[in-house]
Amino acid sequence: MNYKTRAATKEDCKEISRMITELAVFEKMPDQVKISYEELERDGFCQNPFFECLVAEVPEENKSKEGYTVVGYAVYFYTYSTWKGRTVYLEDLYVMPEFRGNGIGKGLLSKVAEIAKKKQCVRLQLSVLNWNAPARDFYAAKGAQDLTVTEGWHFIRFDGQNLDNLANEAPKD
Amino acid sequence: MNYKTRAATKEDCKEISRMITELAVFEKMPDQVKISYEELERDGFCQNPFFECLVAEVPEENKSKEGYTVVGYAVYFYTYSTWKGRTVYLEDLYVMPEFRGNGIGKGLLSKVAEIAKKKQCVRLQLSVLNWNAPARDFYAAKGAQDLTVTEGWHFIRFDGQNLDNLANEAPKD
Repeated sequence: MNYKTRAATKEDCKEISRMITELAVFEKMPDQVKISYEELERDGFCQNPFFECLVAEVPEENKSKEGYTVVGYAVYFYTYSTWKGRTVYLEDLYVMPEFRGNGIGKGLLSKVAEIAKKKQCVRLQLSVLNWNAPARDFYAAKGAQDLTVTEGWHFIRFDGQNLDNLANEAPKD
Repeated sequence: MNYKTRAATKEDCKEISRMITELAVFEKMPDQVKISYEELERDGFCQNPFFECLVAEVPEENKSKEGYTVVGYAVYFYTYSTWKGRTVYLEDLYVMPEFRGNGIGKGLLSKVAEIAKKKQCVRLQLSVLNWNAPARDFYAAKGAQDLTVTEGWHFIRFDGQNLDNLANEAPKD
């Protein structure tokens, strides 16, 4: 299928927000989405943006059942390894179900890898859920290592009250 | 023990680099450290820095055996959740062995949490190795969740040849 990838603009945020919700519905967690397209506009298109985004677009004649031409997206940002230097983290990679199987997800992933290399990043990292075998297989087939399996890395999170508690205990310098 | 935390400056990069190597030696992987203090200067103190850093400093009268007064550091950067918005990732948290047990690690962690809240970040995340029970217990005692255990998240990495391969396959738009 004919498609193009390009850097998202502020004007794409409504479409990106729609697909973020579609992805959450697919993952059976639509209630978890707390941010609006206005927040995406604010955080992704400011002086020091918190993320960058690519979108995949199909021509008008291939639009979706509901009339959408923006049919996939990748949200990523720059991270850092104190051993290796610049790295990229891929937060979301999504293609609308009716457009899957056309290489669009692979295209977006490769494009992020290309951007990473241009920025002299030495790693592209991401996370997948244990039960998401299709995603795990997709990345493994492209040569990615599963560091939780090979090195035993665990993800740790502070949020809500425990984050507030920590912040409130910060030394007053 | 009397200590202060403060934002690192470009002039601290030699000290930070020294402690990055100390941490890698402690982890029995000193050969993994590939970046120099010049790269830290370049990547952390530019227009859109790839990371931010706090250091912990003790007064001259409490200096280390080797004469160091910068005795700990925290490297962190801003990340993003497409469900929750702004987040912070803590890449490294280190205190020199002879200064442990004085609350310096906790002070640095709380300070990062305070910065996160000021930037309206809703999560502070990090990774620990499975075998590093002291670190896992330290974070758990402060209320952090282990998402690899509770939700089954795995870390995935592309690097070296497999990252090059991906980048080389990027669609030419």
